[in-house]
Amino acid sequence: MPTSQQLSLNTATVKKQWNLRQAIEGCARHNIGGISPWRDILQECGASEARKMIDDNGLKVSGLCRGGMFTAQGSLTSAVLDDNKLAVDEAVTIGAQCLVMVVGGLIEGSKDLASAHAMVEEGLAKTVEYARTVNMPIAIEPLHPMYAADRACVNSLGHALDICDRIGAGVGVAVDVYHLWWDTQLEAQIKRAGKDRLLAFHVCDWLKNTNDFLLDRGMMGDGVIDIPLIRSWVEREGFTGLNEVEIFSADNWWTKDADEVLKTMVDRGKTAV
Amino acid sequence: MPTSQQLSLNTATVKKQWNLRQAIEGCARHNIGGISPWRDILQECGASEARKMIDDNGLKVSGLCRGGMFTAQGSLTSAVLDDNKLAVDEAVTIGAQCLVMVVGGLIEGSKDLASAHAMVEEGLAKTVEYARTVNMPIAIEPLHPMYAADRACVNSLGHALDICDRIGAGVGVAVDVYHLWWDTQLEAQIKRAGKDRLLAFHVCDWLKNTNDFLLDRGMMGDGVIDIPLIRSWVEREGFTGLNEVEIFSADNWWTKDADEVLKTMVDRGKTAV
Repeated sequence: MPTSQQLSLNTATVKKQWNLRQAIEGCARHNIGGISPWRDILQECGASEARKMIDDNGLKVSGLCRGGMFTAQGSLTSAVLDDNKLAVDEAVTIGAQCLVMVVGGLIEGSKDLASAHAMVEEGLAKTVEYARTVNMPIAIEPLHPMYAADRACVNSLGHALDICDRIGAGVGVAVDVYHLWWDTQLEAQIKRAGKDRLLAFHVCDWLKNTNDFLLDRGMMGDGVIDIPLIRSWVEREGFTGLNEVEIFSADNWWTKDADEVLKTMVDRGKTAV
Repeated sequence: MPTSQQLSLNTATVKKQWNLRQAIEGCARHNIGGISPWRDILQECGASEARKMIDDNGLKVSGLCRGGMFTAQGSLTSAVLDDNKLAVDEAVTIGAQCLVMVVGGLIEGSKDLASAHAMVEEGLAKTVEYARTVNMPIAIEPLHPMYAADRACVNSLGHALDICDRIGAGVGVAVDVYHLWWDTQLEAQIKRAGKDRLLAFHVCDWLKNTNDFLLDRGMMGDGVIDIPLIRSWVEREGFTGLNEVEIFSADNWWTKDADEVLKTMVDRGKTAV
């Protein structure tokens, strides 16, 4: 089971409690090995200043959340593409191991899933083209199918890897157990991904009585996902990255003292990840 | 687009308003071609009495909802298996075209998805063995992945067909657009199923701002699913069954006058199915 040094704090986990400086200091205080900021709090802090604090505290950066949302404006506008380039640059600035992509859902007013898939893939290809020039790996994060309409129309590791196959070098996947645990193809697709394309591993838990589509994720061990099993599949391929903890939890973890959240996260790392 | 005669009313759609007799009479009044009762209201009415009413009103029975829940007691108890046999018998009594199976989720207190899969498959095989003797087709209904923990651990048409392949004759699938619309493999898997295994086709809609995991399904046309496209895939394989409308909608359709619901369903059948 992962030690605290093998964990990374996705800042969404303490989104309501801490800004980025506090999250970095919290990770250091709890001997957590890495951090993965969201762009809003990164920008609030300033990417260069963040990099300095991250380095001063000896943290790795398991990823930057997030680029993508290619379908948000109904076409691949320069605004959408430029924002993704900016995300790549920010990821470079903070020394992130990858830029995580939540690709976007259906185009507003459209039921055409195939068109959304095509727009997403074109946006990814263009972003990867740029990211290659600055050596920033792009990680496609397949989201749970319940987000297909509004957040991401890539909902299986298989689909994400099909896209990777077509785009080629510079793109891989982020495996989040919350989104993918139910898929009978998961083990086989992790094997298909292989070490080079397994860019990030995200953990939390699926609560059996989930009450909200977005904001009711569970702490590892409180739900039904066999996280150690899925981790074993990822590590069997040679993945040696951090176990990034990303918990959106409006009514529970976001209401608690953030040091308690990090303490729990470290404890659960040893027993449930 | 389907005429009213090509629609079937799943009784869950008017669950809060009507008993089975009222639903049957409602279908006749709105010239709807078929009905698909849930077992609770069927048992309340009595299966033989229901059959008589259904025949008197000239309705087809597109399915009986539902057997399954093989994991509910932690093992394949005789109670679980006997209840499934009873469901088969009830389906025969009312002349249903198939018995729909919601197979059950994880075993209580377990995170072992593989064990749940195995228990489900054994339960299905045993039920099919009996159902063959009375010529009742068994339709596995893959449910949306958001139900993997608590309702059904078969969450893709591909997985359902893998099970069908192993069990052999007497078992097929129920394709519900709500559960499967997001799957990039859907068209290919419908083709793989073929006419003989496409036993039922269920329609409703996925609302972009769904607020409840179970009880916020939309009327066809109110959501994001391209239902005519999916119907075209099913019909291309030779499916000639009814378009069964199954809408769980606590805050909307269940609060309306049931005749208005059926009128809307018939109207939408012509424009959005």
